[in-house]
Amino acid sequence: MEPRADIAVIGLAVMGQNLILNMNDHGFTVVAYNRTTSKVDDFLANEAKGTNILGARSLAEMVALLKKPRRVMLMVKAGKPVDEFIEQLLGVLEPGDIIIDGGNSLFEDTIRRTQYVESKGLLYIGTGVSGGEEGARRGPSIMPGGSPAAWPHVKPIFQAIAAKVADGTPCCDWVGEGGAGHYVKMTHNGIEYGDMQLICEAYHLMKDGLGMTPDEMHEVFKEWNTGELDSYLIEITRDILAKKDDDGTPLVDKILDTAGQKGTGKWTVISSQEMGIPITLIAEAVYSRCVSALKDQRVKAAKAFKPGKTRFAGDRREWVHAIRQALYASKIISYTQGYMLMRAAAQQYSWHLNYGGIALMWRGGCIIRSVFLGEIKNAFDRKPKLDNLLLDPFFKKAIKGCVRNWRKVVSMAVRKGIPVPAFSTALAFFDGIRSERLPANLLQAQRDYFGAHTYERVDKPRGEFFHTNWTGTGGRVASSTYTV
Amino acid sequence: MEPRADIAVIGLAVMGQNLILNMNDHGFTVVAYNRTTSKVDDFLANEAKGTNILGARSLAEMVALLKKPRRVMLMVKAGKPVDEFIEQLLGVLEPGDIIIDGGNSLFEDTIRRTQYVESKGLLYIGTGVSGGEEGARRGPSIMPGGSPAAWPHVKPIFQAIAAKVADGTPCCDWVGEGGAGHYVKMTHNGIEYGDMQLICEAYHLMKDGLGMTPDEMHEVFKEWNTGELDSYLIEITRDILAKKDDDGTPLVDKILDTAGQKGTGKWTVISSQEMGIPITLIAEAVYSRCVSALKDQRVKAAKAFKPGKTRFAGDRREWVHAIRQALYASKIISYTQGYMLMRAAAQQYSWHLNYGGIALMWRGGCIIRSVFLGEIKNAFDRKPKLDNLLLDPFFKKAIKGCVRNWRKVVSMAVRKGIPVPAFSTALAFFDGIRSERLPANLLQAQRDYFGAHTYERVDKPRGEFFHTNWTGTGGRVASSTYTV
Repeated sequence: MEPRADIAVIGLAVMGQNLILNMNDHGFTVVAYNRTTSKVDDFLANEAKGTNILGARSLAEMVALLKKPRRVMLMVKAGKPVDEFIEQLLGVLEPGDIIIDGGNSLFEDTIRRTQYVESKGLLYIGTGVSGGEEGARRGPSIMPGGSPAAWPHVKPIFQAIAAKVADGTPCCDWVGEGGAGHYVKMTHNGIEYGDMQLICEAYHLMKDGLGMTPDEMHEVFKEWNTGELDSYLIEITRDILAKKDDDGTPLVDKILDTAGQKGTGKWTVISSQEMGIPITLIAEAVYSRCVSALKDQRVKAAKAFKPGKTRFAGDRREWVHAIRQALYASKIISYTQGYMLMRAAAQQYSWHLNYGGIALMWRGGCIIRSVFLGEIKNAFDRKPKLDNLLLDPFFKKAIKGCVRNWRKVVSMAVRKGIPVPAFSTALAFFDGIRSERLPANLLQAQRDYFGAHTYERVDKPRGEFFHTNWTGTGGRVASSTYTV
Repeated sequence: MEPRADIAVIGLAVMGQNLILNMNDHGFTVVAYNRTTSKVDDFLANEAKGTNILGARSLAEMVALLKKPRRVMLMVKAGKPVDEFIEQLLGVLEPGDIIIDGGNSLFEDTIRRTQYVESKGLLYIGTGVSGGEEGARRGPSIMPGGSPAAWPHVKPIFQAIAAKVADGTPCCDWVGEGGAGHYVKMTHNGIEYGDMQLICEAYHLMKDGLGMTPDEMHEVFKEWNTGELDSYLIEITRDILAKKDDDGTPLVDKILDTAGQKGTGKWTVISSQEMGIPITLIAEAVYSRCVSALKDQRVKAAKAFKPGKTRFAGDRREWVHAIRQALYASKIISYTQGYMLMRAAAQQYSWHLNYGGIALMWRGGCIIRSVFLGEIKNAFDRKPKLDNLLLDPFFKKAIKGCVRNWRKVVSMAVRKGIPVPAFSTALAFFDGIRSERLPANLLQAQRDYFGAHTYERVDKPRGEFFHTNWTGTGGRVASSTYTV
């Protein structure tokens, strides 16, 4: 057996298969391997028929087929399977070889695995791959991090198979050391949760607030997809709303309204809590899925608190436009928060993230791809160290243009009883971040009152702490080492 | 040295000192120990002067003074110090002795420590203690969990020093095995974050929406504290608003509006994310502290997006009443969510939580103590297996009585640009949980479209999953093992 393959891919679920086919299209020779080897035969006899794709029935056979340094990409379920394959691969690979994890691994696992694999003399890449099955097949967004020394060996393949933006730039570039790639992919997924929730809220408002049919909403999303909201998720929503069930009625109406949530959305929220970064919109999006899952409790509560049906009376075109602006403004807030999170993570983990480059990676191929991300790229081109997206002139102007309708829509939802947790948390965040003075002074007074936590003063330098004996009683001992 | 002490307390910060003095008041003999032993001398010479409190300058001396089974309570900083003291104590204690951690430990640490200490033949208790320094001194709320066999030995002391409700019932009872006590305390703290944020939002609305002075608001909180909102936090807010600085102006206006957040609030949110329980209000409360901490960005954004000052024109009494109802309704939602979380945790960790008992423990002594918690106790007395607080007749009626004004207040805040993230997320949750149909059907369609995640149908039994080939292209392989 001659070592003639450029890369091996382990795991033949749909993402793995499609990545292999994509690599093959671009002239790379790929070895396919799967733990259940019958899947290899099945793949070669079907999807891979007539291609240069090779199959391996054992890891040893796979390794023997690979050119050096060997590149082995895992497309297996995140978690234990990744560790198990790493362990097996360390037994058959050699120093200098490269193990790549293309699954949705937790970035902390990737930090750990990079160190571990490097300690054995090999190189490691943990990479986000976004775009769903279609993206994997035709050009995904790829976000690699890990061992910098591995990047030159992987770059030609990854950049060849990645999506390209209009000028041909690939939606793939080096993100950073250790877990940086998976962190950025995690944030992408969190933002994806947010984008989907925003679309759902717009749909809910049009459906229950304006009384529109799926066909009518199809037309709205079709129009929206030609402007500033032009994006993959708006596009598929347009198509979904037009799709008919076998009986000719809209399929979307037949789908159960309980969404799953597990993994990357929740990780994003957890990381934001660890770092104290308010990504309120993503958090509400994740929680909204949780509420949707409580179908039985909702049915009971719906009986107890019957939502009143109010008839819509107004100019529908005007309201649709207002909803569009509310969605756009909320989306700006969500990305503002997502970028705040990545900035904090970069600081915490000593990554040198290229924020414009990340926008470019997300610009095509992935689920959140959009015209909008081009504007974010432009914002970071204008000011690479931009510390808040809202302060960029383009987004500042965009928000200002939307704010009146944004308030109008949230206020309408509040009065009509249509839940818009993401629209309204975005607005609350906006009103919070643009408040020079928030009521946290009262909160600090409360904390000092019951826990002697001390406070700073507006008329004294930061870092000087004061304690008031609010009750006139109490002792001489501070609570510095004990937090209530 | 004769072993005559009932319990030892390690750690002489304010909480530790006050618990010791409290125990002494109730006739128990306490040994005080501190790593820096000069603190022991200082304490004995000052706060403990004239009491029966003993001092120890070493762990050996401390142990020699204790009756068997020895009870040693740690009041030290959560985290590593607890593990270090456990290790040291295992060296000087004997099987059957009891180690108690009274700090704000993470419940997962307490689960681990209980197992560890039990594996050495000793018993362990991890207990929440709430009430701040004043509570510790006069009667805190105490929430113990850990080794059930330890409880009879600790119960007399804990129930003696705990706060008592009107009929004399102590605000302390056995919570459950392992980390149950610290979990309930963590949830308490999360709810405390929520309660404080709700008060801050009411204050903000009165201050910036109605243009009221601290003295005027002092009168409002004074009135509120006589009704359904009667609680410790409303009471101290009343007092805080009346407090004058040395120059005679309201002190609250001089306090910097940046709040700290670390520890239990964030843990509550993280745990809710792990378990998929939507405690949206606590999450918004934690994030609000994060936003408050971003003072520099806020000052910049305030310049970019100048909030317009709108003059208030309306009936101030009416609006104050509406804000009171918005606060009350939001508070009901927050506790509903907190109880959902504890119910999920109990299931996850096999704890047998007594939900009415928890309300009773929180009814007095702790920071969130309130008349309101008496109503929660009543609700669980009426129906111990109540699975959603909103469905209890009392709270159902309360919400219905508030909902009109709740919407009015949130809508006013939205129009005026005053951030009320907690009020509005509570309302969004209410409108979500009472929606028989949410827009998650569209979300499921999206997930099936780009990731072949499948969906259930309203016209088919639960558990039957469908996939639509939305695009007409795509292959035969499902994405069962790969989640985008």
